[in-house]
Amino acid sequence: MNYDAEAAACRAQVEAALDRAVPEDIPEPLRGAMRYALLTPGKRLRPMLLIKSHEMLSPAGEDVLSFATAMEMIHAYSLVHDDLPAMDNDVLRRGQPTCHVAYGEAMAILAGDGLLNLAHETMLNSAHPRAFPAARAISRYAGSYGMVGGQALDITFTGKSPDRAVIERMQTGKTAALFQAAVTAGLILAGADEKLVAAGAEYGLGLGRAFQIIDDLLDLTSDAAMLGKTPGKDTAAGKLTWPSAVGETQAREDARLWTERAIDALAPFGNNADFLRDTARQALNRIR
Amino acid sequence: MNYDAEAAACRAQVEAALDRAVPEDIPEPLRGAMRYALLTPGKRLRPMLLIKSHEMLSPAGEDVLSFATAMEMIHAYSLVHDDLPAMDNDVLRRGQPTCHVAYGEAMAILAGDGLLNLAHETMLNSAHPRAFPAARAISRYAGSYGMVGGQALDITFTGKSPDRAVIERMQTGKTAALFQAAVTAGLILAGADEKLVAAGAEYGLGLGRAFQIIDDLLDLTSDAAMLGKTPGKDTAAGKLTWPSAVGETQAREDARLWTERAIDALAPFGNNADFLRDTARQALNRIR
Repeated sequence: MNYDAEAAACRAQVEAALDRAVPEDIPEPLRGAMRYALLTPGKRLRPMLLIKSHEMLSPAGEDVLSFATAMEMIHAYSLVHDDLPAMDNDVLRRGQPTCHVAYGEAMAILAGDGLLNLAHETMLNSAHPRAFPAARAISRYAGSYGMVGGQALDITFTGKSPDRAVIERMQTGKTAALFQAAVTAGLILAGADEKLVAAGAEYGLGLGRAFQIIDDLLDLTSDAAMLGKTPGKDTAAGKLTWPSAVGETQAREDARLWTERAIDALAPFGNNADFLRDTARQALNRIR
Repeated sequence: MNYDAEAAACRAQVEAALDRAVPEDIPEPLRGAMRYALLTPGKRLRPMLLIKSHEMLSPAGEDVLSFATAMEMIHAYSLVHDDLPAMDNDVLRRGQPTCHVAYGEAMAILAGDGLLNLAHETMLNSAHPRAFPAARAISRYAGSYGMVGGQALDITFTGKSPDRAVIERMQTGKTAALFQAAVTAGLILAGADEKLVAAGAEYGLGLGRAFQIIDDLLDLTSDAAMLGKTPGKDTAAGKLTWPSAVGETQAREDARLWTERAIDALAPFGNNADFLRDTARQALNRIR
């Protein structure tokens, strides 16, 4: 199977699981707002990374799929809160009105809270023998030293000129942390040893850093139809981006270097890592 | 030891644990905002309930204390988000400026997210043999069929006149769910069987319903200095309250009935439940 077909098959499996993932006994319109945020079309990259990381070592069953939906819930909640008027004030996301535009600000705040909580509930409901350490890894990367911490640095330093180390820490938290969560959790569920889990974390870091730099570059050059969100907004809002810190040429070079680093980290997995390698290459192709 | 002395000793233990609970490697000002929300003076009722429920069966160690801090993190995050301008728009909480007044709205949203995530991280970092089922219970009560669901009903029906069943479901979610979480998690950690856990859930329900009705009654009659928050606001904002649905006299009677129901549920624990009984009685004394 080629990469696109394999990705499409995995994505279809994830979409079906996401459609079942929000329990029916949640009161409306909260449930609707949570589903709206979770089911808005997307690449489903984080759930796919979790499943495909697991499959490097052994086939992924229903339990692994539920962890994959938890990853997307965490991603979706972070987008809902990130788009709020007090945060990035975005009205368009993945080509659709953002959650607070569709459901109001109060319900969007609660839908985000509900999705973050449901992610943990989903993982804690698992009967998988390694559910506990896998949930621990995801929770740590998603939290205040990981994704939430990255968002906080983003807010704190918008409109300022911090050194590169701050931007690097911000982008590692904002983007790489959830990739690392997905890959390491997939590997932990599959029974990987510490060395393999560390290799997975290194891949997630490289992919995440490359991915964010590529996003920054696309924000400079694309239109709304292609991005599915408002372009040029980061720069206009005084957001920290890698190209603004190092220039566009160096940023392109850095995206390539981080992609290489991600691919190099996959060596211990041999040919089983081809899908993850191609994922990193495809991301880089977006700026070619 | 009398009730007040025992409560003060337990509260002091919780305060010390809360002061250590937010890790130092979280970037500022996020860490400061999380600590501000978590350490604002409060009754620490939920952590105390968790510890004292555990102590009905066996002494509570360091692991149990960490679950107690997780309970307070969930409570604190819900207050931070609840106070936001898009939600209840409260500027005063426990006698101090609310988190978004002190740290700005964006950082308050992230501090809430950070605290909810940290609660789960804290539980997932536990090496206690029953950490997984205890965390599962807390996560379920805190989520979209529990506390978050109650908040959503509150938002949805503000200014409307729903039937009593809706108000009951709303108040059960908003207030009773976290009491049930604390008591059942304490019992699960202590190794209680299903029957005892169910008795604890029934106590939490009764205490929570009584507590919310008492809060509603106090909001009608108290001043800011006594409440530590803006009084009369619920009624002015068209919030659903129990007295507004059934009248003040019936609400007083219902608070008494729910308190009795809570106390009755403790029968299987015998004299070991005296602290939990007194907790319910003390709550009721606030409106006497």
